[in-house]
Amino acid sequence: MSRCLISQEEVQSFIERCMTGVGTKPHHARSLAEVLVEGDHRGHYSHGLNRMDMYVKDIQTGICEKHGEPAVEKESAATALVDGRNLLGPVVGNFCMELAVKKARDVGVGWVVAHGSNHYGIAGYYAMQALKENMIGMSFTNTSPLVVPTRGKECTLGTNPISVAAPAADGDSLVLDMATSAVAIGKVELYERRGDPIPEGWGCDARGQLTTEPGRVLGGGGLVPLGGSEATGGYKGFGLGMMVEVFCGILAGAQYSKNIRTWKETSRVADLGQCFVAINPENFAPGFSERLSDLLRIQRGLNPANPDIPVLVAGDPERMHMKMCEEMGGIPYHMNVVNYMNQCAQKVGVSTLLPCDRLISN
Amino acid sequence: MSRCLISQEEVQSFIERCMTGVGTKPHHARSLAEVLVEGDHRGHYSHGLNRMDMYVKDIQTGICEKHGEPAVEKESAATALVDGRNLLGPVVGNFCMELAVKKARDVGVGWVVAHGSNHYGIAGYYAMQALKENMIGMSFTNTSPLVVPTRGKECTLGTNPISVAAPAADGDSLVLDMATSAVAIGKVELYERRGDPIPEGWGCDARGQLTTEPGRVLGGGGLVPLGGSEATGGYKGFGLGMMVEVFCGILAGAQYSKNIRTWKETSRVADLGQCFVAINPENFAPGFSERLSDLLRIQRGLNPANPDIPVLVAGDPERMHMKMCEEMGGIPYHMNVVNYMNQCAQKVGVSTLLPCDRLISN
Repeated sequence: MSRCLISQEEVQSFIERCMTGVGTKPHHARSLAEVLVEGDHRGHYSHGLNRMDMYVKDIQTGICEKHGEPAVEKESAATALVDGRNLLGPVVGNFCMELAVKKARDVGVGWVVAHGSNHYGIAGYYAMQALKENMIGMSFTNTSPLVVPTRGKECTLGTNPISVAAPAADGDSLVLDMATSAVAIGKVELYERRGDPIPEGWGCDARGQLTTEPGRVLGGGGLVPLGGSEATGGYKGFGLGMMVEVFCGILAGAQYSKNIRTWKETSRVADLGQCFVAINPENFAPGFSERLSDLLRIQRGLNPANPDIPVLVAGDPERMHMKMCEEMGGIPYHMNVVNYMNQCAQKVGVSTLLPCDRLISN
Repeated sequence: MSRCLISQEEVQSFIERCMTGVGTKPHHARSLAEVLVEGDHRGHYSHGLNRMDMYVKDIQTGICEKHGEPAVEKESAATALVDGRNLLGPVVGNFCMELAVKKARDVGVGWVVAHGSNHYGIAGYYAMQALKENMIGMSFTNTSPLVVPTRGKECTLGTNPISVAAPAADGDSLVLDMATSAVAIGKVELYERRGDPIPEGWGCDARGQLTTEPGRVLGGGGLVPLGGSEATGGYKGFGLGMMVEVFCGILAGAQYSKNIRTWKETSRVADLGQCFVAINPENFAPGFSERLSDLLRIQRGLNPANPDIPVLVAGDPERMHMKMCEEMGGIPYHMNVVNYMNQCAQKVGVSTLLPCDRLISN
């Protein structure tokens, strides 16, 4: 399968023109494009350009709002409740995270929760906004039901991600960005397309039994929480998914649990709940970033079990992907993604991605 | 193995007199006893009376401080940094959680971090303090290194627990209280004593390979993070353990990672870092506890995969244990624990547990 290299700038402006082409306000389109490009740049292709058509359709059908801005409904020195007004997720996310950082600058912590939001791309994008201010950032979102609780056989929770970013010295950082399921649904789909069995502990069948057949997970079963079976701690992943739901749907008064529309359903608004937190280390013990650098150094410096596979901390795999992009001079995309997105652009009536003459072979 | 029933009040006063017998201030002894009794009452015997001798020794040897009270070092409307002054963990924990709740009452969230602390019992005890005020509570602590990072073969993180408690309607609640390792070390020790193999995904040997032999985990290996192997998401549990370390040792300026003294080492002070958070739902969307009750109802009401094993939410297993204690009229203890603790009491020179004439058979 051939791939081609496209610069971040090109992808950014391509997404912007597709989104403005269907009536999105330019600065909303810019916010969305930035999150999606960052997703691809960090190697999370399932949350990048690959999903642009979903956002285009959301605006085209009016299921997602193009007009207005998010609004603060209730506020204290350290907290805010925000009405996302059914705008694009990244518009809501940026608004809330900026507010959380502002509050953390004033009183050490900002805890901002939004209802009326939509898919916001990678959770880590918002947590990482805090790094620029030398703060710890966190971001959580509820999502469409795909996860089967421990002992159950029905999906009643989303993959409800947790993201935490913390600033170390010299621009280094810890960036945790994880679903509270063992894996993402896209990974199961990939194994199914390849015809490979999945490892035990990723998903269950319609009877709630762990299975290694991806088709059974996708056809009536579901993902299982981080930890896998009850014996190996799956109930903890279930508990973490519930924690995220408490911070999102329950605290915000948004949709929650199995009331959230199913994945790719577009007949009703999403009304997702999201939570954004900033914590200012300056309000605690001096020397935070130096200690964090030391903590990262301890882990990265460990003798690995396999000498060829180094110990990585959260954020390192993404760092390696970004470095690869920088060395190659662009983000590598599969041609079929590029072709599909160019068809979207043609339907919208805007110019396609710049000529993909920089082909690379796998 | 015979067991006997002892009332909570008896255990409470027993622990208090053992602790005051070695010079602990009465209200510090009371705080410790309350946490330990609650550990047993909730069925977490590894964090209850069973550990009393450790606290007695900590005071006897002077490794833990008997005099003074915790002190606020730095404060804002929403945050505080506390010096635990090497006092008993529950003394530090209660001080910090009370402060966090007070701040959440004023500005919606309180984020309090302590250095100079010690083992504080079950993390959930502190998180649950917030329930009385109809708030969400959280508590985190770092602990002695027992967990091997994904891809590594050396213990550089503790089991670093996460606890979150959230108030539902009519006294119901969600209470998550989980180590970020797949299991606690005590569970591996139990399997070793029984001569049983452990499930794959609990621990690794000295070469960093997953093993089902408990002896290899305890002899040079270690626990693995929640998620087990890298393929089943162990790196996520590792990331969560790092998150807890950031909130505790790194934010507080306490010991962290492999610098923390090893488990049961008592030649130097622990200087643990701990983090306590309270969030006031009244600062967000109205109707929090009703929505949470509905979320719990959805999960508990699921058709279970096995009709005999109902779906439980975080906190339900503990609720069942407490109900059992209430029905039996006391907390059941193994006689060997009672006998061992009575020996401790005799050494300290205080009266033993009241006569254990209420024997029960297993």
